[in-house]
Amino acid sequence: MSLDAVLARIDADLPAATERLFELLRIPSISTDPAYKDECRRAAEWLVADLATIGVEAGLRDTPGHPMVVGHVPGDGPHVLFYGHYDVQPVDPLELWDRDPFDPALEDTESGRVIRARGSSDDKGQLMTFVEACRAWHAETGRMPCRITFFFEGEEESGSPSLVPFLKENAEELRADVALICDTTLYGTETPAIVTMLRGLLGEEVEITGPDRDLHSGFFGGPAMNPIRVLTRILGNLHDDAGRVTVPGFYDGVPDLDPGLRSRWDALGFDPTGFLGSVGLGLAAGEAEHSALEQIWSRPTAEINGILGGYTGAGFKTVLPSRASAKVSFRLVGDQDPLAIRDSFRAWVRDQVPEDCKVTFRDHGASGASVMATDHPAFEQARQALSAEWPQEAAYIGAGGSIPVAGHFKSVLDTDAMLIGFAKDDDQIHSPNEKYDLDSFHRGIRSWARILDALA
Amino acid sequence: MSLDAVLARIDADLPAATERLFELLRIPSISTDPAYKDECRRAAEWLVADLATIGVEAGLRDTPGHPMVVGHVPGDGPHVLFYGHYDVQPVDPLELWDRDPFDPALEDTESGRVIRARGSSDDKGQLMTFVEACRAWHAETGRMPCRITFFFEGEEESGSPSLVPFLKENAEELRADVALICDTTLYGTETPAIVTMLRGLLGEEVEITGPDRDLHSGFFGGPAMNPIRVLTRILGNLHDDAGRVTVPGFYDGVPDLDPGLRSRWDALGFDPTGFLGSVGLGLAAGEAEHSALEQIWSRPTAEINGILGGYTGAGFKTVLPSRASAKVSFRLVGDQDPLAIRDSFRAWVRDQVPEDCKVTFRDHGASGASVMATDHPAFEQARQALSAEWPQEAAYIGAGGSIPVAGHFKSVLDTDAMLIGFAKDDDQIHSPNEKYDLDSFHRGIRSWARILDALA
Repeated sequence: MSLDAVLARIDADLPAATERLFELLRIPSISTDPAYKDECRRAAEWLVADLATIGVEAGLRDTPGHPMVVGHVPGDGPHVLFYGHYDVQPVDPLELWDRDPFDPALEDTESGRVIRARGSSDDKGQLMTFVEACRAWHAETGRMPCRITFFFEGEEESGSPSLVPFLKENAEELRADVALICDTTLYGTETPAIVTMLRGLLGEEVEITGPDRDLHSGFFGGPAMNPIRVLTRILGNLHDDAGRVTVPGFYDGVPDLDPGLRSRWDALGFDPTGFLGSVGLGLAAGEAEHSALEQIWSRPTAEINGILGGYTGAGFKTVLPSRASAKVSFRLVGDQDPLAIRDSFRAWVRDQVPEDCKVTFRDHGASGASVMATDHPAFEQARQALSAEWPQEAAYIGAGGSIPVAGHFKSVLDTDAMLIGFAKDDDQIHSPNEKYDLDSFHRGIRSWARILDALA
Repeated sequence: MSLDAVLARIDADLPAATERLFELLRIPSISTDPAYKDECRRAAEWLVADLATIGVEAGLRDTPGHPMVVGHVPGDGPHVLFYGHYDVQPVDPLELWDRDPFDPALEDTESGRVIRARGSSDDKGQLMTFVEACRAWHAETGRMPCRITFFFEGEEESGSPSLVPFLKENAEELRADVALICDTTLYGTETPAIVTMLRGLLGEEVEITGPDRDLHSGFFGGPAMNPIRVLTRILGNLHDDAGRVTVPGFYDGVPDLDPGLRSRWDALGFDPTGFLGSVGLGLAAGEAEHSALEQIWSRPTAEINGILGGYTGAGFKTVLPSRASAKVSFRLVGDQDPLAIRDSFRAWVRDQVPEDCKVTFRDHGASGASVMATDHPAFEQARQALSAEWPQEAAYIGAGGSIPVAGHFKSVLDTDAMLIGFAKDDDQIHSPNEKYDLDSFHRGIRSWARILDALA
């Protein structure tokens, strides 16, 4: 049976597959920082060249931002659209990394061997699990088990500004029977998962301007309004004492958790103490009346992701600054309307800005939550294929992160998406010392080989 | 009469005096940033060499921080201790400067000719007014009109950590009949002033730590406590709706304004609208029940001088950061006890930090307010000398800035201080594009020549 041969080839080819991934990880494709524009293009070009080696006709597709990579390979059976992103998060604070983020290495840790590098887990390592599964199928059988379209984006970490226009312009080419997205985590070390609920994301930047220049707090402190005072006062009211977000109308469209889903989630035996303890915390900080797991998978949040104002260098400077700013994001669920929440947030801020100060907003993307149609037969085929590879049965779960592409595939292409990933909660994505377990990479490749076989 | 000859020499020597000041301004003596340690020493050495040219035997005096400069010159009459500081503020944000901050130039502006450079007003330009007055006396008469001790510090912009120990160790050498401090402003363009009330300063840095690493707000947003949320919530409560500081006991020791002083201040015709309008503001933001002038001269304040947390670069990063920090300063008046307020502030913060988070504090100096003994005869002698030089009569005023050295001279040396300066409110000290009016420099030199004559 060819699946067994494909799996055996994957096992034998793992060192070479790892070295190919290292080549991609060495490219610092930080999409949010304009200084790395050329590196993003270089990562896209690397993918085009690598796809060519497995018989996939792929090309770069320019956008106003970083290019897309699209490749096609014919095959019998259903048409599968595979999505991953080749861009990575910034690496600061660089001094907290134990090694160069773009000099990947295998490291032996207490919990096994890991691939250490920025992007190893999010998302280069994950997207390469699928490419390597296809490589093994191609090498072993001379063809792919089904028709596949490869679609790699380079702006996922910077709000995907080109994604929807690109999907609209190329809808006929990209529409498929099912989409596969590899950008999520396992449920547990031995338990794979298919994500069926994803939170949406709204990103906003707020800047308060008080005096028209930086002032000396001795001369002006007292009468002159300090924009940091204004900003902290507003953002300090973003949550009430029970952890609820105070922006008017914020909870419109937030559904109650389905009792059946809640009991399946309860059966997963999630351990909030261990989850928070792993990062040095002990108390769930979100809405008091919801469990930690519900808070992550099914409740909306507001977070201040960055704040800056005045003098923040060494020592002290008694400046009364002209400006202060913050980046705020909202995770959204159910039918929450990102654009209505943006409007309400901006109005709520404006209402609290003193007459003397100005406020400006910058839009950093807005996408609603996604809930997948698990009655599509591909879901159960994939779940069984995953369960065959891993020690524990695969679970349908929610996910706290936002992968707006799943919603866009549905709304623009009318294509349902399955989110299957092999990352772990301790991968430190978006943080220093990001890693991807070698076991995630290896079993991930094997999982896709099985899923392609099952879907075909 | 030799005063007239001295004044004429000052007028003739102004271009050369300006060039000497430029030499000092070219040295980037930023005391708060360790990278500029050698430059601070270089500025001190420049002063020693310059004092030698006017017959003052001066030397560098090492401290654990930046060196002091002390020089003596004999003379008849009272012993005068002159103080200035040769260190300057940091220059960031550098992109808001119209020229290199350490490449001084004369510029013609709508309000006259100015010297543009970091430190031109605070305090190199001011301290050189006194040195140039002495130079003219020395050149014209071969001696100084009275016994003078020159005392220059290099840590004024970084909390003066070495000052009090140095004063204690050298009290016999530095004790004088009166101290002159040149680090304050004119009351108005044509109205000189002697400051008789100075606010004190307490500097504190607060850092909140939540999770033990930076987290992805998708995975952890909700259950994991965000330290920026904690920090903004606390600092957002630092003032109440009426602009009063909420730290318990903060107003202990704040005196009511003396009715006599209030009526003298009222007579100055201060224009709060014009004052705030000059920096793009219109409403006094401090305690609602006090006038803007009272807020600056006689009321205590709390200001957030800097805040930093999470991702603050270009674009967006959905990080839930491990830490957030702020620099907070308090301007103090009357008998407010800086150490008691530090304790109260720290307890007030600690009470609001959730069980799950940690808080650490860093001390950035603490000094009480100063009220001068205006019945010392030197005050009226100096006031009359100033009134002779300027179009308007000199005023006794308060000052919002903190010049702790005046209090230390009194407590350690038992020497009363007169604060006389020629800076203007629009000098943009501590801000980009700092300047010092050439007229301030010129009349400042002439003022000191007159004051030395009057005191002698």
